[in-house]
Amino acid sequence: MKIGILTSGGDCPGLNAVIRGAVIKGDRLFEDEFIGYRDGWRGVIENDWMTLPRRRVRGIGRVGGTILGTSRANPFHDGQDGAEIVRRHLDENDMDGIIAIGGDGTLFTANRLHEAGIPVVGVPKTVDNDLDATDYTFGFNTAVEIATESLDRLRMTGDSHHRCMVAEVMGRSVGWIALHSGMAAGAHVICLPEFPLTIDEICAHVKSAFDRGRAPLVVVAEGFVPKDAPEGFMDYDLDEFGRPRFGGIAEVLAPVIEERLGIETRSTVLGHIQRGGEPTGYDRVLATRLGTAALDLVHAGRFGRMVALRGTDIVDVPLTEAIDSLKAVPESRWREAQVLFG
Amino acid sequence: MKIGILTSGGDCPGLNAVIRGAVIKGDRLFEDEFIGYRDGWRGVIENDWMTLPRRRVRGIGRVGGTILGTSRANPFHDGQDGAEIVRRHLDENDMDGIIAIGGDGTLFTANRLHEAGIPVVGVPKTVDNDLDATDYTFGFNTAVEIATESLDRLRMTGDSHHRCMVAEVMGRSVGWIALHSGMAAGAHVICLPEFPLTIDEICAHVKSAFDRGRAPLVVVAEGFVPKDAPEGFMDYDLDEFGRPRFGGIAEVLAPVIEERLGIETRSTVLGHIQRGGEPTGYDRVLATRLGTAALDLVHAGRFGRMVALRGTDIVDVPLTEAIDSLKAVPESRWREAQVLFG
Amino acid sequence: MKIGILTSGGDCPGLNAVIRGAVIKGDRLFEDEFIGYRDGWRGVIENDWMTLPRRRVRGIGRVGGTILGTSRANPFHDGQDGAEIVRRHLDENDMDGIIAIGGDGTLFTANRLHEAGIPVVGVPKTVDNDLDATDYTFGFNTAVEIATESLDRLRMTGDSHHRCMVAEVMGRSVGWIALHSGMAAGAHVICLPEFPLTIDEICAHVKSAFDRGRAPLVVVAEGFVPKDAPEGFMDYDLDEFGRPRFGGIAEVLAPVIEERLGIETRSTVLGHIQRGGEPTGYDRVLATRLGTAALDLVHAGRFGRMVALRGTDIVDVPLTEAIDSLKAVPESRWREAQVLFG
Amino acid sequence: MKIGILTSGGDCPGLNAVIRGAVIKGDRLFEDEFIGYRDGWRGVIENDWMTLPRRRVRGIGRVGGTILGTSRANPFHDGQDGAEIVRRHLDENDMDGIIAIGGDGTLFTANRLHEAGIPVVGVPKTVDNDLDATDYTFGFNTAVEIATESLDRLRMTGDSHHRCMVAEVMGRSVGWIALHSGMAAGAHVICLPEFPLTIDEICAHVKSAFDRGRAPLVVVAEGFVPKDAPEGFMDYDLDEFGRPRFGGIAEVLAPVIEERLGIETRSTVLGHIQRGGEPTGYDRVLATRLGTAALDLVHAGRFGRMVALRGTDIVDVPLTEAIDSLKAVPESRWREAQVLFG
Repeated sequence: MKIGILTSGGDCPGLNAVIRGAVIKGDRLFEDEFIGYRDGWRGVIENDWMTLPRRRVRGIGRVGGTILGTSRANPFHDGQDGAEIVRRHLDENDMDGIIAIGGDGTLFTANRLHEAGIPVVGVPKTVDNDLDATDYTFGFNTAVEIATESLDRLRMTGDSHHRCMVAEVMGRSVGWIALHSGMAAGAHVICLPEFPLTIDEICAHVKSAFDRGRAPLVVVAEGFVPKDAPEGFMDYDLDEFGRPRFGGIAEVLAPVIEERLGIETRSTVLGHIQRGGEPTGYDRVLATRLGTAALDLVHAGRFGRMVALRGTDIVDVPLTEAIDSLKAVPESRWREAQVLFG
Repeated sequence: MKIGILTSGGDCPGLNAVIRGAVIKGDRLFEDEFIGYRDGWRGVIENDWMTLPRRRVRGIGRVGGTILGTSRANPFHDGQDGAEIVRRHLDENDMDGIIAIGGDGTLFTANRLHEAGIPVVGVPKTVDNDLDATDYTFGFNTAVEIATESLDRLRMTGDSHHRCMVAEVMGRSVGWIALHSGMAAGAHVICLPEFPLTIDEICAHVKSAFDRGRAPLVVVAEGFVPKDAPEGFMDYDLDEFGRPRFGGIAEVLAPVIEERLGIETRSTVLGHIQRGGEPTGYDRVLATRLGTAALDLVHAGRFGRMVALRGTDIVDVPLTEAIDSLKAVPESRWREAQVLFG
Repeated sequence: MKIGILTSGGDCPGLNAVIRGAVIKGDRLFEDEFIGYRDGWRGVIENDWMTLPRRRVRGIGRVGGTILGTSRANPFHDGQDGAEIVRRHLDENDMDGIIAIGGDGTLFTANRLHEAGIPVVGVPKTVDNDLDATDYTFGFNTAVEIATESLDRLRMTGDSHHRCMVAEVMGRSVGWIALHSGMAAGAHVICLPEFPLTIDEICAHVKSAFDRGRAPLVVVAEGFVPKDAPEGFMDYDLDEFGRPRFGGIAEVLAPVIEERLGIETRSTVLGHIQRGGEPTGYDRVLATRLGTAALDLVHAGRFGRMVALRGTDIVDVPLTEAIDSLKAVPESRWREAQVLFG
Repeated sequence: MKIGILTSGGDCPGLNAVIRGAVIKGDRLFEDEFIGYRDGWRGVIENDWMTLPRRRVRGIGRVGGTILGTSRANPFHDGQDGAEIVRRHLDENDMDGIIAIGGDGTLFTANRLHEAGIPVVGVPKTVDNDLDATDYTFGFNTAVEIATESLDRLRMTGDSHHRCMVAEVMGRSVGWIALHSGMAAGAHVICLPEFPLTIDEICAHVKSAFDRGRAPLVVVAEGFVPKDAPEGFMDYDLDEFGRPRFGGIAEVLAPVIEERLGIETRSTVLGHIQRGGEPTGYDRVLATRLGTAALDLVHAGRFGRMVALRGTDIVDVPLTEAIDSLKAVPESRWREAQVLFG
């Protein structure tokens, strides 16, 4: 078979391992021919791609990022007939199928194409782990490990100065990274988008830890908004030099905590380091397994489906399960973590 | 309640996080009092323990090893009446229950005690991940990450010298660590105890990789025995200075590969570094969740059970499920990995 | 002898190793008695200290932070007679000497005390490596490794998105951390306080790298100010919610680069993670050697001096050498690095 | 100019950074043309090389190993006229100079060639840091960090089991890696080739630590031989299956310690992981600086010299300084470390 692969949407550790898994299995078992689209759907739309012989994927499993590049391009953009564009490409290049690795936007697109008869399968990607159809998404483990390591460092330096450290981790809509890294690092407060705390509640936890002799560690998901945030508190307007008025929620919270409690408080926004770098062994294995399973889907003609993890098994589900299936942190997990700090 | 905790059997990253999870939840929610037995069952037998106030577990979640120490002591050793010994201890100290964290030996002992009416719950521990009743055991993730990192290093130095590198990882009876770290590191051969390869087969994979310009990486579980090993090949006798005749299986294989293929081959036995060191964020979260769940079991009076992971949920099962439930690598996982190297 | 130890000023990886080196050598060779002042000079002023028997320093060499805590307290604060305060403490406690571990402020204070007859020796501490009297200060190596690791991650995720990444590292007055981590990570521009570039020059380097197909990596020391920064560009005023108008220099630069070049640009301020965490093996060795050498100074009665590194030797120099001896990055090192990016 | 580069002898983290430093500076400043010889001198002898345009060295600074491969080939092997071979190659390819990166064997060869009029400069390489002409060699820092990390893990697991852990690190003739990693990890005994201890002395230190409640950590350089080793103790003969009679010195020592003291003792030979993997930021910077300096030597016509580190400066010295200049651990450094364990 002749199969195309693309990685679309945000970067995520493990993308290369997915590609490698599919290519090596396809080459070894079926003598498949692979092409890799550059920068996601853009490469399909603009016919910009590279060949992917087995030697091209040598050793990439442990490399972060994606050798194919990524973008947020969309074949249906601006009302284009995405299915027609892709179909034409497939015909011109004798393609048998496409493996699309991406987030919910990519999978939504993949489903639209499938419904229009395009042979496409999906591999879900979200470093936030917010896809309900799968127990875990690759890249999440790596992000949690990077965040945890940083939180360990912040906690240590906070201890020396008897300071409160406020750390912001990824998580626009869901708090999985904050939950896991916060639990791992023994945070004294974890602020998730799903369960808004008031500033008073946050300060109470900080004070409680401080009074016990600890240097309080507050972990905040980037999408967290305090329950009682006053009007305009979260505005991201720019000033006359084109600079944002303030940074992330951590940078907003820190001075507020310091002012209310009189405890020296510093903030750190972990930012982009959470997405980059080598995937962990865990993510390399998960991504590799998903890649080989996606290849199997293509050979089985099971288009319109995507691979997923259930327990320790790799299964496949309809792409439609990726739509409107935000996996937020459930209350049971929130309470499980809360009891460890108050 | 007054609850005793012990860690028994081999060391494993995450033990301290289990202890911390139980103590903090018990202290916060129930004002429980905890004591920690030194060196596993020895501490129960000899009444050697320490108090575990909340401050004692501060920050230990990220520390490897166990603050309680461990040993292979057993209350039933030498035909002793283990139940009587433990019962007496519980009565004398007004204990309400015991949380036993350990491997199958420890859980077997816990079950015997339970059958004799002792209030005990279990937390399964095996760095080899060979317990069937749970999807993963804590410590396994850390061991895989340590092994993967080492394999990455071996692969890199092997590449420079165009050598074959043979690496031995933990796994006496099962090959889970070899499977996961081997897949993660892109090994060219993975040798598991469950699926013995012949030396010829191993050499064929090595040669195939070498001929493709790679520096072959062979990952071997310590319990692997070649299918066609001649008599006496695996004898571990000592010489007149008390030294073992040879090292692990990796040290046996390397010169054999070198001799048969004429490819320079070096071996490394990763050994004890796989057990030590800080647990990963993943293991800290898993161990912490298991610890809080074990505490819940005690409060619910659900003795004779142990906590386990199913998918993303923490559940509990009878201790008997830990007996004779070796989770070997199934053939499906073996074939999934094999296709990536031949 | 009875010797007091204090750590003062900002946190720095390796402080505990210095303490450990002094205590173990003093205890082993001389049966010295040690006390540790809490939070720097505050502990001396307020007579708040802990005993430091050898077992207290067990294993702390590899732990970040300082078991003694730190602060910016100063015995000469507010015109107090610092020498009198300290002298009284020494007499009341039968002290023979003090080992002061700290930055130039601490060493300046130590020198004032020495000039007033107080038996004090110094161990220089500055994570920025900006002390001219020594080749390297402990903690710098660790900060560079943490920064380099983060820059590697940023570069990788930048590559996937074809973005420019701007990273801010520590360095208020000097650019040593930016220089070393920037060179290590292969940055395309390094912005040091010592050699202000114009925004045009920065953009030229970014564009050059981008046109060559790279995802440009810009490393900026926190104290860097663009040569042609317009008036008010670097003001750090607060708004009505008490929030800073903008973040660090990286957050200022990124949108400017994006606007001028049309290249997607993201910023990350590494912040406090650079100070925290375990010291590297290099820093543990250096700090330990400095600690044992400081102990030797006390026993040799060589007060008013501080230990330092010259090549591979530990030497000692007058405390006065720490005053007004800012070690800025020299032009030769700047040019050496510049040639690697243009 | 047209310049050839080769890496010869054992693998060492940082080799690629040296190559990159030379190529980028030469390309940027002088529009030099570079070729890279495959596998050291073999590539020169057999005229097997690759072009090294600037894009070929992109990002390799952080990659371990060497993109050129390495071997122990020698143009003077078997009495060949090495100078003639190399001269012919230089003439046929219009070469202006060669940068040889390697250990004392390589530098010795380089010097012979220089004396025969070949334009060659050297960059010293020895992961053991045993070259007297330079304060540090690149790769040493990385090896120490890898060893230290492993020792930390061994110490932690030893603590849980109250065991003695014996770890073998690199160092055939000199004990620099054992000294640095042992000090960093707080070893209770460090066994260096330069200062042979008797087995009794080793056991005394182990017992002393054990009696103080520690899990003793013994760090042994691979070339260490006990002062009182009986005849035949260190023989490395093979048995009838072609297997070595025993492993390294650590595997010899462990059972002896266990037998004499009755303390459970385990051994680990760190082996090849110490050479592989990404170089640290420190080594990337040092190697890069050495690479740019080697390029400068070629342009200055200063052949027959090699680059070296003195303090924080990169200097150059005659290649002859690399001959017979084994830098063993001096007694002062031994005593400095010894006082920390007894």
